[in-house]
Amino acid sequence: MGEDTKTRVKESQEEGRQEMWRSIEIVGSVEKWASTVVVGDELNFIPPLNFAMVDNGVFRSGFPHSANFSFLQTLNLRSIIYLCPEPYPEANTEFLKSNEIRLFQFGIEGYKEPFVNIPEDTIREALNVVLDVRNHPVLIHCNRGKHRTGCVVGCLRKLQRWCLSSVFDEYQRFAAAKARVSDQRFMELFDVSSVPISFSCSNKV
Amino acid sequence: MGEDTKTRVKESQEEGRQEMWRSIEIVGSVEKWASTVVVGDELNFIPPLNFAMVDNGVFRSGFPHSANFSFLQTLNLRSIIYLCPEPYPEANTEFLKSNEIRLFQFGIEGYKEPFVNIPEDTIREALNVVLDVRNHPVLIHCNRGKHRTGCVVGCLRKLQRWCLSSVFDEYQRFAAAKARVSDQRFMELFDVSSVPISFSCSNKV
Repeated sequence: MGEDTKTRVKESQEEGRQEMWRSIEIVGSVEKWASTVVVGDELNFIPPLNFAMVDNGVFRSGFPHSANFSFLQTLNLRSIIYLCPEPYPEANTEFLKSNEIRLFQFGIEGYKEPFVNIPEDTIREALNVVLDVRNHPVLIHCNRGKHRTGCVVGCLRKLQRWCLSSVFDEYQRFAAAKARVSDQRFMELFDVSSVPISFSCSNKV
Repeated sequence: MGEDTKTRVKESQEEGRQEMWRSIEIVGSVEKWASTVVVGDELNFIPPLNFAMVDNGVFRSGFPHSANFSFLQTLNLRSIIYLCPEPYPEANTEFLKSNEIRLFQFGIEGYKEPFVNIPEDTIREALNVVLDVRNHPVLIHCNRGKHRTGCVVGCLRKLQRWCLSSVFDEYQRFAAAKARVSDQRFMELFDVSSVPISFSCSNKV
């Protein structure tokens, strides 16, 4: 990279810092996902199943296995939200420990239709953890990254004022053939005013 | 938000700033997507078809129409990469003008299989624009956000060292029933060493 380019990047970064300060209460800590771009053709990062970036500092996926750990390290996670009642495997617990990642577990049963009972209170508690930028970067995951994770992200989108059809479209992109009307009904009914918007999120549009 | 919380957020932001400086050549300007979270139940943001966040400061979608403009404004875009040969509609040009968004147009024909000819040079040029953080936040879009956009994002994932099966999995999530083997073969063959990693991206893992 030439000297001239370096200077320009620094300048634009300076501007960025100022903007970050102005929007501190909205955005929070968003600078942690280092996009590792390298020369070479060794393709050896394996993101977990159904991995995606939800928003600045917020990611989603299915259950991460040890094959995914080196990829996860590139995200510099500060915390993980785990939405299943089963205990976290030892290998995963070790990974969290050695990378100083905090685990928030919310044990939501993986109900199948029509025996559905999505616990609204638990989803709300999970959302509170997502909304707190002190926990960012955060990875939300369940088992397959479809239903429980999809519901949490869908409720987050409602808080971000996405129209319902866009919320459902995103949900269906991950759930695909396993999409559930009951999950979508849950998101439709979810009362966004029940989530206290404190932490670092703004009330302004 | 209480005084105490404010202080904590400021402190964590301070840490964040230092980290941003350390990773300036990797991450670049990533602080622009303000997650608008509001109290109320008016769901009126309509993201474009197939909208998603690709990485810090990088978004993807299908063609944005005027109904999507108020949502797009929340992204504070600095540029748009448009991958079709058709001229940009006047309403969209006006939107760019009034929001000071720069347009990079790469006219790639929307070939249908088996008459496929993805121009590697053009994809490489588009990637160079994506990789230059001075263009961030940037939205990459074509018509439906499936094939042309999918190929650019897929090549970006290879640069990020994602394994091919994860690259294809993400491609298919957006292309769904319209997924093309030829696109995937293009991504498989794409030579990452042909993209000069200059700008602000790091060569380090």
